[in-house]
Amino acid sequence: MPSYSAPLRDMRYVLKDVFQMDKQWASLPALQELIDMDTADAILEEAGKIAGEVIAPLNREADEEGSHWSDGAVTAPSGFKEAYQTFSEGGWVGLGGNTEYGGMGMPKTLVGQVDELVQGASISFGLAPMLSAGACLSINVHASDELKEKYLPNMYAGTWAGAMDLTEPHAGTDLGIIRTKAEPQSDGSYTISGTKIFITWGEHDMAENIIHLVLAKLPGAPAGPKGISLFLVPKLLVNEDASVGGANGVSCGSIEKKMGIKASATCVMNFDDARGWLVGGENQGLACMFTMMNYERLGVGIQGLGAAEASYQNAREYARERLQSRSPSGIQAPEKVADPIIVHADVRRMLMTMKAFNEAGRAFSTYVASWLDIAKYSDSETDRKHADTMVALLTPVAKAFMSDKALDATVMGQQVFGGHGFVREWGQEQLVRDVRITQIYEGTNGIQAMDLMGRKVAMNGGSSIALLAKEIHAFVEDNSGESAQEYTQPLLASLHLLTQATETVVSQAQDDANAVGAAAVDFLHLTGYVTYAYMWAKMALTSQALLAEDEAFHGAKIATAQFYFQRLLPQTGALAQGISAGSSAVMALASEQF
Amino acid sequence: MPSYSAPLRDMRYVLKDVFQMDKQWASLPALQELIDMDTADAILEEAGKIAGEVIAPLNREADEEGSHWSDGAVTAPSGFKEAYQTFSEGGWVGLGGNTEYGGMGMPKTLVGQVDELVQGASISFGLAPMLSAGACLSINVHASDELKEKYLPNMYAGTWAGAMDLTEPHAGTDLGIIRTKAEPQSDGSYTISGTKIFITWGEHDMAENIIHLVLAKLPGAPAGPKGISLFLVPKLLVNEDASVGGANGVSCGSIEKKMGIKASATCVMNFDDARGWLVGGENQGLACMFTMMNYERLGVGIQGLGAAEASYQNAREYARERLQSRSPSGIQAPEKVADPIIVHADVRRMLMTMKAFNEAGRAFSTYVASWLDIAKYSDSETDRKHADTMVALLTPVAKAFMSDKALDATVMGQQVFGGHGFVREWGQEQLVRDVRITQIYEGTNGIQAMDLMGRKVAMNGGSSIALLAKEIHAFVEDNSGESAQEYTQPLLASLHLLTQATETVVSQAQDDANAVGAAAVDFLHLTGYVTYAYMWAKMALTSQALLAEDEAFHGAKIATAQFYFQRLLPQTGALAQGISAGSSAVMALASEQF
Repeated sequence: MPSYSAPLRDMRYVLKDVFQMDKQWASLPALQELIDMDTADAILEEAGKIAGEVIAPLNREADEEGSHWSDGAVTAPSGFKEAYQTFSEGGWVGLGGNTEYGGMGMPKTLVGQVDELVQGASISFGLAPMLSAGACLSINVHASDELKEKYLPNMYAGTWAGAMDLTEPHAGTDLGIIRTKAEPQSDGSYTISGTKIFITWGEHDMAENIIHLVLAKLPGAPAGPKGISLFLVPKLLVNEDASVGGANGVSCGSIEKKMGIKASATCVMNFDDARGWLVGGENQGLACMFTMMNYERLGVGIQGLGAAEASYQNAREYARERLQSRSPSGIQAPEKVADPIIVHADVRRMLMTMKAFNEAGRAFSTYVASWLDIAKYSDSETDRKHADTMVALLTPVAKAFMSDKALDATVMGQQVFGGHGFVREWGQEQLVRDVRITQIYEGTNGIQAMDLMGRKVAMNGGSSIALLAKEIHAFVEDNSGESAQEYTQPLLASLHLLTQATETVVSQAQDDANAVGAAAVDFLHLTGYVTYAYMWAKMALTSQALLAEDEAFHGAKIATAQFYFQRLLPQTGALAQGISAGSSAVMALASEQF
Repeated sequence: MPSYSAPLRDMRYVLKDVFQMDKQWASLPALQELIDMDTADAILEEAGKIAGEVIAPLNREADEEGSHWSDGAVTAPSGFKEAYQTFSEGGWVGLGGNTEYGGMGMPKTLVGQVDELVQGASISFGLAPMLSAGACLSINVHASDELKEKYLPNMYAGTWAGAMDLTEPHAGTDLGIIRTKAEPQSDGSYTISGTKIFITWGEHDMAENIIHLVLAKLPGAPAGPKGISLFLVPKLLVNEDASVGGANGVSCGSIEKKMGIKASATCVMNFDDARGWLVGGENQGLACMFTMMNYERLGVGIQGLGAAEASYQNAREYARERLQSRSPSGIQAPEKVADPIIVHADVRRMLMTMKAFNEAGRAFSTYVASWLDIAKYSDSETDRKHADTMVALLTPVAKAFMSDKALDATVMGQQVFGGHGFVREWGQEQLVRDVRITQIYEGTNGIQAMDLMGRKVAMNGGSSIALLAKEIHAFVEDNSGESAQEYTQPLLASLHLLTQATETVVSQAQDDANAVGAAAVDFLHLTGYVTYAYMWAKMALTSQALLAEDEAFHGAKIATAQFYFQRLLPQTGALAQGISAGSSAVMALASEQF
């Protein structure tokens, strides 16, 4: 059976040693009273216990059992309801929530790490609090005070769960063509009618009520994305005193049979004259969704990381224990019938690759979260604006690059097990199946790449990339010593490829409408490799300075950085070369020639 | 529901236009009477019908149903038994078999393409005839005439199936440590005792009998791989007249719950004093297995190709039909609510990548098969020796590179479907799960890479790579015209990287025992990209010459070649750079530092 243990040592390293996050927390007025490094440590330790002891042990069996649909009601797999209750009682759903309504007000730099622990234990389970937190975020920013007072406390407490209802059978990426309708009523509410699909945990028995945030169209709304509004639609109507009342016109038509995250229910939701309340302005639905999206998209990247870490931990144990063949350097375990497979360079290549991507991903997600915190909490408008730009640029990278590398990592973690990796009992194949969804939902990775390459790069002529480049150049200048060159020189070389590629595509896009799309995924990966190189350079220099404190730990960091620069970063050359080719070969065929 | 149609046009193109395989067939005495291009066409057309109409329609439901184990007996999913009977009656199991015993004697260049059709329709189903054919191959080469006469006719006819029993719980890659025992009996037979795992179709109800080829150790056999012998062990004992008799001591203890190929039974097989007969000499078991391995390993690569082709076909249809958003070049389908997603460059990037790898894979597998045919059928010893060298070099590439690229392709084919790709009904996720095993079984892809880099390259100082390089140089010299440069120049550049990398690793290996392992997988991929570039150069030049005959078809070939050279081949630079780094970073950590 697979197991999961919280990578607390590495999280502390990222927060404290690499980013000195306590300084940032102390500098932000809303956070300085709430959190310091000791509090963060204590919270991570508690989260690690829940993840490792309460959630992770359910994950394998829940995949086999799945969620159950019967007569419109969904029952979560055995143990989920109790675990959800424990989780809620610990205050974890509202960890990052508004303190005015019972949230704990913690920064994303910490919440993101707690997320990794929960998702590493079980993506299927973790989706429930993740969607609740996302719904709360939108309500907190856009809903009226009345709605906030009525809904947020019970949602932060986990008593009620949240769900996001966007997709329709004919409208996934293209939300502008949704058909769900909202009719205004005399009392200020609306009646919502339509069908939504792919609604994660749209129905279940873990919470007393489920609060849906539903995209719908008002009568006479403009066509396309500018005619979409967001509505709060509870499964059970809520009385004035915030107790639950009668049923609303909300029902679950069926749940999907999926490749992975089988324990979670992916629902077809029917709204039949359900009562709902407008969140944000009329026709402002997409803007309201975007508030949440940067958080959710980073969260999906972190889901991938969680699963990739779990896969790594199991692969590492297996590689230490599985005896098979002898080391080419000579027998290592003469008392045994064969050596453990960790002696083999190719097994190490897989473990090192997983380690290099996972640890860079952990640092990178914290780095992105630090920009989210500044954007939300800083009292300097200049800093907030700078942070907004960085968040906009880096969010699609966090979502897509982290999830793409998570698939690679879980496939490698499965490969280390050989044939046993294909057998469900060992859990490694489940991680591949579960992680695969992170490349698809919350905007496919292709859509993320189009967002990056189009809106965040080509539309501003590459100025956001220039801002990132400026930061990296400053970092390199600050670390000009001899021993830094090994990392800073290839970092600068890869950054040069990125700025060149930016110029190339910005220029191509002037007279080629397909240039952005043709380059997008390769450009996103190029950006991912460069930002991970930045993370590894930071970590290598941090660990160089701290080496004497813990030679095994920091020595491993330095060696992993070297592995990243020698074996993984060269990918940037191939990506840059592909991007420079433009769209002609991509677009050459007529549809019927495929 | 997914569908599958035989890519006959492309198969004909590869056989006839690209390789003029009819000339090779006519030059080999054993084949010249048996096959010409018309016969090949007719056979492929019939195989396409069985694949598309009989096998493919079972594949989706059989995945949900799985094989059933009860009290030691396995029942195949609904429809499999009938399909297997139809398949056997068509003579397909013995298509490449020895004509003396009822086989059809067809060359691998044709059998490989039939394999692609069967595996493209269903890997789970296709495994049954594939393992039978593999077992026949070993029996045909190594068994006594008596065994051949007794077993081969019924096996070629499909009346009896075959299974390969190698792996044990503690011995996968490392077969030298198997524990299954063979005790010689006075009548010349042996009693076999032990437990084997991961035995594909080790037990089922599709055939009257199952003939196991079992690796076991004789009393006093040398330790390690040199002490292994191969035995033929039938499920039911066979009478003198080749009718089936009583039960042998062979039973199926259980079947595995797996990630994919769920319709196939992966069996734990128990041998309790089962009667068996030696195949080949005592302690020659591994050599007997190797006879079959080149065929089986190419066959596994072709399995991947089949699934990747199926995924491509479904993704192409979906991309033509799914309406979502508008083309950045302006509205393409004004009468519809949105444009089909095939207008988007990123969707095309995925389809083009799949197409480029699949079509190169089809050409490459035929190319490797042509060497197998020469090695088997040529009357020139020089030619046979040359062909043996090429087969040895290219087989691990065919197995591992084709299956790795097949995973990439099926993941892309799933990605084109967005959220629907994650839902089982559409079949795209099944192809990912099914194809994943091709990277694992028949020697993991890491083992293939070690075989290539160690035995086939480092051990002969790179002379096999030099032979391949010589052939490619001759091809480039034969095609020195202006219009060939676009393909031959980057082909030569990538070949140069390969020969450089070969020299680098051969030199590193002289004083670093881990050099081979550290470079292996990247080296195999580098070889794969170069040989696929060779295939695309051949196809581009072929299609340039034939363009007027069919502009749509040959124009698409040329555009796909351009896509390959511009967007995919640049990967070679990254691989070469990674290889040059050597093993130091890969091997730096102590086991406990992971």
